[in-house]
Amino acid sequence: MTMSATEYYTSHRDEFLDGLERFLRIPSISTLPQHKGDIARAAAFLVDELQAAGLQNTRLIEGEGNPIVSADWMGAPGKPTVLLYGHYDVQPADPLNEWASPPFEPQIRGDDIFARGASDDKGQTYLLLKAVESLLQGGGELPVNVKFLIEGEEETGGELLEEYLKVNGRKVGADAAVVCDTEMFAPELPTLCVGLRGMVYTEIEVEGPRTDLHSGVYGGVAPNAIQAISEIIAGLKEPSGKVTIQGFYDDVRPSAQAELSAWARLPFDEPTYLRTEVGSQALVGEEGFSVLERIWARPSLDVHGIRGGFVGEGGKTVIPARATAKVSMRLVAEMDPGEVFGKFRQHVESLTPAGTTVSVRQLSSAPASAIDPGNRFVRTAARALTEVFAAETVYIRSGGSIPVVGLLQEHAGIPSVMMGFGLPDDNIHAPNEKFHLPNFYRGIAAVSRYLELLGE
Amino acid sequence: MTMSATEYYTSHRDEFLDGLERFLRIPSISTLPQHKGDIARAAAFLVDELQAAGLQNTRLIEGEGNPIVSADWMGAPGKPTVLLYGHYDVQPADPLNEWASPPFEPQIRGDDIFARGASDDKGQTYLLLKAVESLLQGGGELPVNVKFLIEGEEETGGELLEEYLKVNGRKVGADAAVVCDTEMFAPELPTLCVGLRGMVYTEIEVEGPRTDLHSGVYGGVAPNAIQAISEIIAGLKEPSGKVTIQGFYDDVRPSAQAELSAWARLPFDEPTYLRTEVGSQALVGEEGFSVLERIWARPSLDVHGIRGGFVGEGGKTVIPARATAKVSMRLVAEMDPGEVFGKFRQHVESLTPAGTTVSVRQLSSAPASAIDPGNRFVRTAARALTEVFAAETVYIRSGGSIPVVGLLQEHAGIPSVMMGFGLPDDNIHAPNEKFHLPNFYRGIAAVSRYLELLGE
Repeated sequence: MTMSATEYYTSHRDEFLDGLERFLRIPSISTLPQHKGDIARAAAFLVDELQAAGLQNTRLIEGEGNPIVSADWMGAPGKPTVLLYGHYDVQPADPLNEWASPPFEPQIRGDDIFARGASDDKGQTYLLLKAVESLLQGGGELPVNVKFLIEGEEETGGELLEEYLKVNGRKVGADAAVVCDTEMFAPELPTLCVGLRGMVYTEIEVEGPRTDLHSGVYGGVAPNAIQAISEIIAGLKEPSGKVTIQGFYDDVRPSAQAELSAWARLPFDEPTYLRTEVGSQALVGEEGFSVLERIWARPSLDVHGIRGGFVGEGGKTVIPARATAKVSMRLVAEMDPGEVFGKFRQHVESLTPAGTTVSVRQLSSAPASAIDPGNRFVRTAARALTEVFAAETVYIRSGGSIPVVGLLQEHAGIPSVMMGFGLPDDNIHAPNEKFHLPNFYRGIAAVSRYLELLGE
Repeated sequence: MTMSATEYYTSHRDEFLDGLERFLRIPSISTLPQHKGDIARAAAFLVDELQAAGLQNTRLIEGEGNPIVSADWMGAPGKPTVLLYGHYDVQPADPLNEWASPPFEPQIRGDDIFARGASDDKGQTYLLLKAVESLLQGGGELPVNVKFLIEGEEETGGELLEEYLKVNGRKVGADAAVVCDTEMFAPELPTLCVGLRGMVYTEIEVEGPRTDLHSGVYGGVAPNAIQAISEIIAGLKEPSGKVTIQGFYDDVRPSAQAELSAWARLPFDEPTYLRTEVGSQALVGEEGFSVLERIWARPSLDVHGIRGGFVGEGGKTVIPARATAKVSMRLVAEMDPGEVFGKFRQHVESLTPAGTTVSVRQLSSAPASAIDPGNRFVRTAARALTEVFAAETVYIRSGGSIPVVGLLQEHAGIPSVMMGFGLPDDNIHAPNEKFHLPNFYRGIAAVSRYLELLGE
């Protein structure tokens, strides 16, 4: 006699939370080379968990970069095969002094667990694993076939997964993927994401004088690298927020009226959004587009970091020789990342002031993705979510980039069901990242139910 | 029987060099709080040296900030009293990786000694001390009365010296000052500086969202603090280099024709200057003014440092909440630092984009200074220099700021003779700072001779 999945996950809540905390304690930051060892520890943690859950063929897919953790269970012949995707790497935690509790010492406050990666994406990766464990350990078998692919460099561009899917995409043999790395539109509102923006991430470096110069002796004749990079950045957008790169909007299509109407019905209050999520004096951006359209259906450009000259305490009167900035663009619809980068580089070069030189390089890129909401795997997901959350599922887009969705479409030929359990105030990529624990447990329930429904 | 000063300094070259190296080994960086102990060590080094040289009343003038080292010798009644000024604090040494030898391990290569502070201003401070030592130890007495004031926070604004001179300026009882902190126009060209630019040094901080945000989720609606600060900086100057602050040039007077003609006769080759000193693709700056006029007689504005967002290796997709920049203006003629700061702040506020807030604060300021070349103390200095260097002395200005010159004029009512022995390629405030050793020794000879001539 076997327990049901429901009985299993209901009786293992404490063990699941304990496991999540152990996962969150590993500072597996993929953008910082000094955390290589933590990346390996996080991958090893998942291998142990997958084996204990009863998965088979658990292994590390190795290559240049961070390993992909892979496992499968193929004991349901004639049933669909679902690829389950997550990532175990996290963003850096700086600025550290803005965290209320240390980023890699998970702390539960109220119904939330605070830690870097809590929501993006360790909490969501772990709930996929616990859903499958509940079905296997509670019922002895799975209603469908599953394959796990959990990567370790989502935050840095995911080169190894891209390489792996390029070579092995068709061999993956899955019918659809579940990508658990998005968020719900609002608390208690089960959400499926059916569109993602793409991205081109770049680094600009400007050189002025050969070496830092004294601003008294040379101020008035020597070019200043920070002045130059500031002029370049200021020249990338109009004050309205419109990107001024020649041809930037050429391949942007207007949003469908049906989608715009659905978005207009979502519970969204701009003043509340400004106050509780953005926390600035005002919102900015392209005129003539709603907030949701600006973040979901329009491309954007942001500077992520800038550095140059003397930034210590007090004053130092240098004319800086060098300045660097990191700039990315979010892409929609048919925008081609390679073409966009070319236009960007040309525009930056055209903005470079006399006396200075610029170099522009691309660090990573991914095209935008769109999923058909009428697809069977998406419709079934909506049904599972609606059952577990006892509320109608809504369809939204996300302004972020999840490169795997485009790669799975292109190389494995399968659609991705973006079933996310994060919340808008989860502070992903920012200090005080958290995950809402009720969503952790309902996520396990929803994924279990989804796989059951797919097996019927 | 006493040796002459000449015999003394000729026979003590090795000891002088050894002493200079010991002085340079102390990393007395005044802008970095962690070097407080080194500041104290540098001051103690000078106290020992002044006492050994035979000066009297050697003491530390203490207060908030770094002590001033003071000493005097008043044994020449009826003769003039000369105040000798230098500073023992130095600029930070970063970027460290651009130094050919460690900044605080002096290394002699060819005729130059390389170390932070070699030229600005330890080498020049130390030669004043050695000139007085040579007269006192070589001849038993000085031809004039002298007072040393050697400060320890010239690079941070010199608050203590300002406070001291405000209170005690008239009591100093000197007839003129020798400020040894400038450079020669060219090698072998003895030079007196008769004009300095003033300065207003500021820090700008921009705030956008309350916390760093994910650029996928919020890109297109959230204000970006780096974008904003870049737009502010770009709005401070026209592409030509002209500062766009309202009323910035109101108090700037045209240069005198005689001065312009003298400057035109100086050995100056713009392509050589560009190649060997600035090392950029081209010079920049206000149209219609020569290079020397732009750096000596026109105000300027430079950004010295900028910081915001993620600047580590790789990519992080944040919309930064905060960005800061350090910006200073060089002032000429009648420009009032307080008024200039007010205009600057107003202009920065007017440039601040929607959705962001800005704060502007002044870190330090000093008015510009002009010295009458017909003054007896200046004319005598020219004679001493011409004798020692066997070349006609030229009169130049400097684009840098030496606040003490203005303070001595205002509070002690005395002119400053800016007799400097640095060279244009000394890399002050930059990596690989050096001092030309032949100028160290001729500086000692010239200052000795100057004091002798003043005593005649």
